[in-house]
Amino acid sequence: MISERDFISQIRLTDIYKHRQVVKGIGDDCAVFRTTNSNSTQLALVSTDTLMEGVHFDLNWHPPEALGRKAAAVNISDIAAMGGHPTIALLSLAVPSSTTAGFLDLFIQGFTASLATHKVMLVGGDTVKSNSDLVLSVTIFGEVDEDRVLYRNGARNGDLLWVSRHLGDAAMGLEICRLKSDEYVKKWPGLVAAHLDPKPEVSLGELLAKSGQVTAMMDMSDGLATDLAHLCKESGVGAKINSDCIPLSTELQGAAVAIERDALDLALAGGEDYALLFSTPASAKHSIAKMVEKKLGRQLCCIGHIVDQDGVSLLVNGEETKIEYKGYDHFT
Amino acid sequence: MISERDFISQIRLTDIYKHRQVVKGIGDDCAVFRTTNSNSTQLALVSTDTLMEGVHFDLNWHPPEALGRKAAAVNISDIAAMGGHPTIALLSLAVPSSTTAGFLDLFIQGFTASLATHKVMLVGGDTVKSNSDLVLSVTIFGEVDEDRVLYRNGARNGDLLWVSRHLGDAAMGLEICRLKSDEYVKKWPGLVAAHLDPKPEVSLGELLAKSGQVTAMMDMSDGLATDLAHLCKESGVGAKINSDCIPLSTELQGAAVAIERDALDLALAGGEDYALLFSTPASAKHSIAKMVEKKLGRQLCCIGHIVDQDGVSLLVNGEETKIEYKGYDHFT
Repeated sequence: MISERDFISQIRLTDIYKHRQVVKGIGDDCAVFRTTNSNSTQLALVSTDTLMEGVHFDLNWHPPEALGRKAAAVNISDIAAMGGHPTIALLSLAVPSSTTAGFLDLFIQGFTASLATHKVMLVGGDTVKSNSDLVLSVTIFGEVDEDRVLYRNGARNGDLLWVSRHLGDAAMGLEICRLKSDEYVKKWPGLVAAHLDPKPEVSLGELLAKSGQVTAMMDMSDGLATDLAHLCKESGVGAKINSDCIPLSTELQGAAVAIERDALDLALAGGEDYALLFSTPASAKHSIAKMVEKKLGRQLCCIGHIVDQDGVSLLVNGEETKIEYKGYDHFT
Repeated sequence: MISERDFISQIRLTDIYKHRQVVKGIGDDCAVFRTTNSNSTQLALVSTDTLMEGVHFDLNWHPPEALGRKAAAVNISDIAAMGGHPTIALLSLAVPSSTTAGFLDLFIQGFTASLATHKVMLVGGDTVKSNSDLVLSVTIFGEVDEDRVLYRNGARNGDLLWVSRHLGDAAMGLEICRLKSDEYVKKWPGLVAAHLDPKPEVSLGELLAKSGQVTAMMDMSDGLATDLAHLCKESGVGAKINSDCIPLSTELQGAAVAIERDALDLALAGGEDYALLFSTPASAKHSIAKMVEKKLGRQLCCIGHIVDQDGVSLLVNGEETKIEYKGYDHFT
């Protein structure tokens, strides 16, 4: 089987028609395009994400309303990753015959409630039968000012690297769900919620885009190691990060001891954090942190910096190791 | 299990947020919206369609390139149904581990070739693992002048009803594939091609929209009985159609005799024709047929007319029967 990354690279080569309205095609969190004859300074953003039963969610522990909210959130997160605000959504559902009307009702309630929180309207979709698993495909649209849009490809040598919140919580939350221990679920509700019901960083993404101080940005879905490798590859740079600076929650550290998992490893390779990963010039270090604290009352975490050589290295106890693409490849 | 129609009606009620940019939400072939600050007369169109292995296609007989073309075509057809032209597309693939790199390569070649034929660019998507079936979700965008966009809801009492080409060929093509008879496949290649490799009616859709003589339009995916019921419901009218006027190809009639199937029944309930179904004022009868013959060298078929009462009736040998929603419901 071909790797997911190689397959996507191949599609980028195969597609021969270049549309004049397209500003950015495959290779970022969203595609970016202009509408014809528009003299607007707004660019259109669009992204699509599929959630497969048995791969992205397990109905044994994922409540339908939370699943609906998550299907909306992971897509909205792609708009946030470009510094945009979401506007409309489409939902395609492939539904096995075992699915009850009650389940669908709660799922849709969660989905549309999450959309409404972000002022997004569900405008269409498709409903089909599935002979096997439940499949949820969402397409999300958004808008961003053309002077403010943030791509993955703008990181430059010397830039600082930041993440917006704790990493690894969602991956540990999934572990806890798999263990089916009511005790653990009650003990670390934040970890379980990070997996079942993630929150997209829309306000922060817009604020960072408007600051004019961010050089590249993306949302984190595949774990820091893989996500950072993507950002570096698109920017044509490398990165060095420091393990001491990677933000790990108290809950994660507690659960990691109890369940005998490595908290740092979950942050690097776990995925589904939906935090923002971004770069700024070194000169913006204090101003960006201060602005975000003032406007949103939140602490950003500076985890390392961009270097002028290939690959992503992690500094642990003074020793550097290469860590890129440690995360999930759907195809291998 | 709830019916697909009832579920979609429920979603239309559940969704509480109404976006100011949205011109038309759930209930047509595409959603229609405006981009912010745009003073363009062009409206944006968007639609999504999911093809599930085992439901929409069978890899025992569907060649990967044709499947790629079909995944593009059925989506492009939704843009044609609004009178628009397609612009960009997104592709989400859920891929089982049994899928080979060669299969994916041919699939993508077919998909992007079909897009390129219609000047559509693939700008993004998602690739995920599937533990069961192959799932293909496509989102397609298009544009249409706001004075020309054609909805399902404009049919009025006394209007004539038209279809753009033979019906039932694709349904019979599927039957032939299921029989796995090389003899039949060779004997009726047009029927097999109608199922494996349908062609969307983009040029005709645009021409009809520009004519200013069409009151309502949609593309046909679920069989004439169901599709016409949708058009009538959205327009708040009913329809009477005449079985003698429903266009059945010579191939379909030949195969129907050989395989002992009813050709008319396949046209009414078969689905996947991707012909256009539309209405015009009675006064446009000659002008519309003449214009389409002159510009595209094609014959349209007038199959009946709109009436001021609920439901769809079919006249067979002088007797009227109600036939709405005879086609496929994915959920029941």
